[in-house]
Amino acid sequence: MTIAPDRLAPMANAIRALSMDAVQAANSGHPGMPMGMADVATVLFSKFLKFDPAAHQWPDRDRFVLSAGHGSMLIYSLLHLTGYESPTMEDIRNFRQLGSVCAGHPENFLIPGIECTTGPLGQGLAMAVGMAMAERHLNATFGDGLVDHRTWVVVGDGCLMEGINHEAIGLAGNLKLGRLKVLWDDNHITIDGDTSLSTSEDIPARFRAAGWDVVSCDGHDFADIERALAEAAASDKPTLVACRTVIGKGAPNKQGSHDVHGAALGADEVAAAREYLGWTAAPFEIPADILADWRSLGAAGAEARKAWEGRLAANPDAAEFNRRMAGDLPEAEEAAKTFASWLEGDTTVATRKASENCLNVLAPLVPEMIGGSADLTGSNNTKAKCQAPFTAEDYSGRYVYYGIREFGMAAALNGMALHGGVIPYGGTFLIFSDYCRNAIRLAALQQTRSIFVLTHDSIGLGEDGPTHQPIEQVMSLRLIPNLNVFRPCDVIETAECWNLALQSKETPSVLALTRQNLPQLRKQGEMLSARGAYTLRRAAADRKVILIASGSEVELAMKVANQLEAQAIGADVVSMPCMELFEAQDEAYRHEVLPHDPSILRVSIEAGSTLGWERYTAASRDGGLNIGIDRFGASAPAKDLFARFGFTAEAIVPKILDKLSA
Amino acid sequence: MTIAPDRLAPMANAIRALSMDAVQAANSGHPGMPMGMADVATVLFSKFLKFDPAAHQWPDRDRFVLSAGHGSMLIYSLLHLTGYESPTMEDIRNFRQLGSVCAGHPENFLIPGIECTTGPLGQGLAMAVGMAMAERHLNATFGDGLVDHRTWVVVGDGCLMEGINHEAIGLAGNLKLGRLKVLWDDNHITIDGDTSLSTSEDIPARFRAAGWDVVSCDGHDFADIERALAEAAASDKPTLVACRTVIGKGAPNKQGSHDVHGAALGADEVAAAREYLGWTAAPFEIPADILADWRSLGAAGAEARKAWEGRLAANPDAAEFNRRMAGDLPEAEEAAKTFASWLEGDTTVATRKASENCLNVLAPLVPEMIGGSADLTGSNNTKAKCQAPFTAEDYSGRYVYYGIREFGMAAALNGMALHGGVIPYGGTFLIFSDYCRNAIRLAALQQTRSIFVLTHDSIGLGEDGPTHQPIEQVMSLRLIPNLNVFRPCDVIETAECWNLALQSKETPSVLALTRQNLPQLRKQGEMLSARGAYTLRRAAADRKVILIASGSEVELAMKVANQLEAQAIGADVVSMPCMELFEAQDEAYRHEVLPHDPSILRVSIEAGSTLGWERYTAASRDGGLNIGIDRFGASAPAKDLFARFGFTAEAIVPKILDKLSA
Repeated sequence: MTIAPDRLAPMANAIRALSMDAVQAANSGHPGMPMGMADVATVLFSKFLKFDPAAHQWPDRDRFVLSAGHGSMLIYSLLHLTGYESPTMEDIRNFRQLGSVCAGHPENFLIPGIECTTGPLGQGLAMAVGMAMAERHLNATFGDGLVDHRTWVVVGDGCLMEGINHEAIGLAGNLKLGRLKVLWDDNHITIDGDTSLSTSEDIPARFRAAGWDVVSCDGHDFADIERALAEAAASDKPTLVACRTVIGKGAPNKQGSHDVHGAALGADEVAAAREYLGWTAAPFEIPADILADWRSLGAAGAEARKAWEGRLAANPDAAEFNRRMAGDLPEAEEAAKTFASWLEGDTTVATRKASENCLNVLAPLVPEMIGGSADLTGSNNTKAKCQAPFTAEDYSGRYVYYGIREFGMAAALNGMALHGGVIPYGGTFLIFSDYCRNAIRLAALQQTRSIFVLTHDSIGLGEDGPTHQPIEQVMSLRLIPNLNVFRPCDVIETAECWNLALQSKETPSVLALTRQNLPQLRKQGEMLSARGAYTLRRAAADRKVILIASGSEVELAMKVANQLEAQAIGADVVSMPCMELFEAQDEAYRHEVLPHDPSILRVSIEAGSTLGWERYTAASRDGGLNIGIDRFGASAPAKDLFARFGFTAEAIVPKILDKLSA
Repeated sequence: MTIAPDRLAPMANAIRALSMDAVQAANSGHPGMPMGMADVATVLFSKFLKFDPAAHQWPDRDRFVLSAGHGSMLIYSLLHLTGYESPTMEDIRNFRQLGSVCAGHPENFLIPGIECTTGPLGQGLAMAVGMAMAERHLNATFGDGLVDHRTWVVVGDGCLMEGINHEAIGLAGNLKLGRLKVLWDDNHITIDGDTSLSTSEDIPARFRAAGWDVVSCDGHDFADIERALAEAAASDKPTLVACRTVIGKGAPNKQGSHDVHGAALGADEVAAAREYLGWTAAPFEIPADILADWRSLGAAGAEARKAWEGRLAANPDAAEFNRRMAGDLPEAEEAAKTFASWLEGDTTVATRKASENCLNVLAPLVPEMIGGSADLTGSNNTKAKCQAPFTAEDYSGRYVYYGIREFGMAAALNGMALHGGVIPYGGTFLIFSDYCRNAIRLAALQQTRSIFVLTHDSIGLGEDGPTHQPIEQVMSLRLIPNLNVFRPCDVIETAECWNLALQSKETPSVLALTRQNLPQLRKQGEMLSARGAYTLRRAAADRKVILIASGSEVELAMKVANQLEAQAIGADVVSMPCMELFEAQDEAYRHEVLPHDPSILRVSIEAGSTLGWERYTAASRDGGLNIGIDRFGASAPAKDLFARFGFTAEAIVPKILDKLSA
C-alpha cells in the first residue's frame, strides 16, 4: 500500500489495455465499463480492499462484488494483475471462448476469487447485502478478531434502475449495514443511449432517503477517489460513492458514448487508445514495472491474513468458526432421534406447520441457520422459537424481517450462502417465486445452499384466489437445473426434505408446502425422500395401476387406490417428493418404482400443471393419465376448489376405470 | 358532487360495515385496508373521480386502480354503493365463495368496473403507469375533447417496498405523467408488524427524487383529504398523496395493529365496531339515505359522459377512435401482400431481425401499436422505422425507452392494453422473462393483448454465457395458462406469429426469437403457424421417424431428416412454433401431424429443457427421444456451444439410429 501517486495511472491503464484487447480478440464483450471504472478500481485495490491473492478463501477478506457483471474484464484484470492463481493470461486471451474460465460474465464456480456470479443486473448488489448481513452476524457471534471486513460493490446505472436495487438498499438501510460500500459507475450512458432517455432520478437523494450516506468523486481523479473512498470507509452507514466517470475512458473517439458499452472497439480505435494512453506494450503483455506494482498490493493483505490466522489459532471458538465456514453441519443426533420418534405419531398438520416443527428441532442444534420471511412470518411458519430478530441493534439475531421484498430476500439468501458461515432460508408464498425467480436460478447456477420456503403451494391456498394460487410454479421450478424442488406429503416427508436441504451443500432447495392440513401417511421407513420417489403403498390386488403423486395429492392418491382396490384393481401409490432426486437414481431403482410394463396404467396426480408429468405416464397403458390443473384457479375455500377442479377420488376413479376398459 | 360535509362520515362507514361484514361472513379476507382507506376513498369518489356507473366502459373515465388488491372489499363496496351493475349485494354476501364475482382479490375478468387484477403487490401501480401512458398517447392523438382523464391508484406499504414500484415511479417521473395520482395508505403496518421492523425509508423523499410531487394529509380528516387531493389534481407532475391512516379504523380494539390486516375481526369486534361507528344497520344492509348519497355521485359523471358522447359524435376521428378502443385491427391488405411475397424470397436472417422486418410492415399500418424495449432496442430489434420516441415532450411517439426495467415494462404493457386504444409490445432478452414473469402471468390472467418480444432465446445467444442463456424459460412460459408462446423457425413463421399475436385480443403472446441467423425454411403455405404445429417436410422413404422441433432447431431437424433419408429412413419434420395452438386443434388434425403409430420414433429437438416434450414423444417407439439441454449453458460463440451440447446432425443421427435398432 505504498504505491506512489504517479504509478496509479499506468496501473489503471493496464486494466484498460487488457479489457480492450480481450474484447477485441473475442470480438464480443463490454469494454466501456472496465475502462471507465479502471481508475476507481485501482484506488480501491491499492488503498482500501483487504485481500490476499494467495488465500482467496480467507474468511475475513473484504468481499468485492462486480454487480455490473458485463464489465467482467475489470475483475479478470484485477485478479490476474494482483496475482491470483486464476485467471491466467491464457485464460484472458481466451475471454468468452469455450473452456476459458473468463466467461462473458463472472462466474463464481469457474474462478475461486470471484465472490458471486453477476450479470443479471441488480442482483450483485442484492447479494452483497446478504454478504454484509452474514459478516455482521458472524461478527456478533465470533467478535472483531475473527470477523471484521467490508463488502464493496460496483454498480452501474442498470443495477440502479432494476427494481431489486430498491429492495436491497431498503433492507441495507434499515439494517444499518455500515460495512457495505457501493461504488456507482455514474457514466450517464445505457445501452440505448444517454440515461436521460429513460431516467431523471436523483439517485443520491434516493439513497439518502433509504438511510444511506452518499459521497461523490471525479472517477478519474485519483486523489479525489481516494478521499471519497476514505470517507465511505469511515462512515458507519451503508454508503454510496457516486463516481462520475466517462464510459470507455481511454478510447479517444468512442469514450462517453453508448457505442463503447457492449462491442469491441475495433482495431483502429484500439490503436488510437494505445496512442492516447501511451500504452506501448503488445496485447496481453504487461510491462514488468507495472505488473510489479500490482503484485505488490497483496503484501499488506498477506500480513493481515497471517495476523488473523494467529488470532484464529488462539480463539477458543476456532473449531466452531472453522466448521461453520467449511459449511459442515454439526452433529445432531438429537434431531435424528426426534424425527424418528415422529414416525410413531399420527400428526395431521399442514406441511408449512410441519416445517415450523422441523425448524424448532433443527434451529437450536444448527446455530448457523438464519431464517426469515418476506413479511409472511405467520403464514410461512418460518420462525423457530429459538430465533431472535436480526436487527441493526442486534446482529446476533437469527431471524430476518425482510419486508415485502421477495427478490431482494432471495438474492440476500444467496449472498449469505456465498459469504459462508451461515445457512440461510427465507419464506414467501410459492406464487411469489415468480417475483424472485431469477435469484432462485442464480442460487442454482452458483451452487449455493439457499433454502426457499415457499408455502401455500396450490389451489389449496383457497380464498385469496387465482393471483395467489400456484398452478405452473412447481413444475416451472423443476425446470431449473441444479435445484431440488421438494413437495412433501406429510410431516415425515417434511422432516426428511428439510434434512436433505440442509445436507445439500451445492444445490439450493425449494420446499413447497401446504396451507391446509394433511394427515400423516408415513409410519415407517427411513429417509425415503432421499430417493426422490418411492412406493408408499403396494397394490394388494393384481397391480393394474400406479398412482404417482406429490405433496397434498398423495393423500388423494391413497383414497383413489383404496377405491380401486375395493373393486379388486391393484394400485401402487408412489410418493414423489422430489423429481430431481428420483431422476438421479440408478435405472434399477427407477424401474423398481416405475416398472416398464405397458399393461399397467400410470396416473399422475398433482394440483398443478400436467405438462411434464408425461415423462412418467405417457409410455404406460393407453398413454397414461394426468390429473392436474392447467387453467387459473378461483377464489373459494380450498375444499370447494379441489372439488371444482376434479381433485377427488370420486372424480378420478371413473377416469381410471375408463382408461382400464379402453 | 354536492354531498354535505357531514354526510361523508356515514358514507365512509358504509364501506367499513360492508368490508368487516363480508370478511366476517367469509371468515377470511382483509378488513384493515378498506376500513383504513374508507375516508380517503369516499372523498375521492365524491369529489374527484370521473366515472359513470351506468357506462363502465366509457373511454374517458378516470381509471381507479386498487394496487393493494387484498383490500378488495374497498372496491367492491365502492362499485356497489355507487350503483354499478356488478357486484350485487348478493355477490358481496358471498365474498370469497365459489362462484361469487367478489373474489379474494379484484379480478378484471369477473367485474367489468374493475380496471385491472391486483393482489401481486406493486403491479397495480405499475399497470397504472401504463394506463397513464396510454391516456397521454391517445390524448396526443385525438385531443382533449376525447381523451382527458386521470389515473388514480391506491397503494400500501407493500406496494412501495416491492422493487417494481421503483421501476414504475422512475418511468412515470421521467415521462412526467402528470395525470397519475397515487394515494398511499400510510398506516405504518405490514403483516409482520410495524413497518419499522423492515423499513426506515423516507418515502416522500424518494418520490421527489424520482420527479414526483408529494402532498400529505390526515387520512381521516375529510377536509384535509379534499385539500390534498385538490393539490394533487392540480399538479402537473405525477403526484403521491401520503394519507396518514389507521389500519382497520373503526374497529376500536384492533385498529392500528397488524391483527386487523388479514383476518376477520371476529363477532365481538364487529359488534364493538358497530357501536364505535354508530352503525345500527344489519349486515349487508345500507340505510336508504346513505345509499342515496352514494348513488347520487354518478350523476355528474353521467352528465360528463353524455357531453363527451356529443363531442365524439362531432369528431371527425370518431370512427378511428372507436375502432382503436374496440381493439379491432385496421384493414391491412398491404401487409398481407407483403408477407405473402416473402414466401418467394430466400431470406437468411435472425428471427429478431425478421421481427423487425415485420414491424416495419405492420407498424405503419397499425397505428395503435406502441413498441419499446427495456434498454435493448438494438438487440431486441423492436423499433420500427416509423416510430418516434414517446417522451414527456411528445406523447404522440410510439416507441418507449423503458430503461432497465423489465418488470415495470411488462406491467406497463398490461396497463396500456387494459386502458385500451393501443396495442403494446416490449422487448428484453428471453432470460429476463424471469424478472417480469409475474407480469406475463397477470397478462394471461387478465386476458390482455400484451406482446412480449423476447430475443436471444437459447444458448445461441453465445458469449454472454449461462446467466444470459435461456434453458428452462421457453418451457416454463408454456406452463402459464392462456399465454401463447411463439418460437418461429424462420422469417415466414415470424410474420405469421406476429399476425397471430396481433389477432389475439384476449391472449397475450411471447415471441421467442433468435440472436443468430436462420435460413428460410418455408416457401409455401398460408398461416400454417395458426395450427401451432404442422408437417414442414414429409418423409420420402418409408416413414420411421417424426422429428418435432421449434425455432432455430427446425433447421437442425431438416438436416437430421436429410441424413436419415440418405440412409433410406423416412423422416417427417414437424415445425411447432406454438405448442398452445397445437393443443387447441381438434384430435383429427393432431393425429394427422402426429399419428398414433408406436412403430414410428418421435424425436423432439429444442435447445432448452426436455421436460414437457415427453407429451409428444414418450408414447412413441421405445419411449421416444428428447434432444435438449437440461443443464446451464456456457460462454462461447454460438456454434461452439451448439456443437458442445449436441445440437448437430452428427450427434443426433446416431442416437436415432440406436433407438431404431433397439
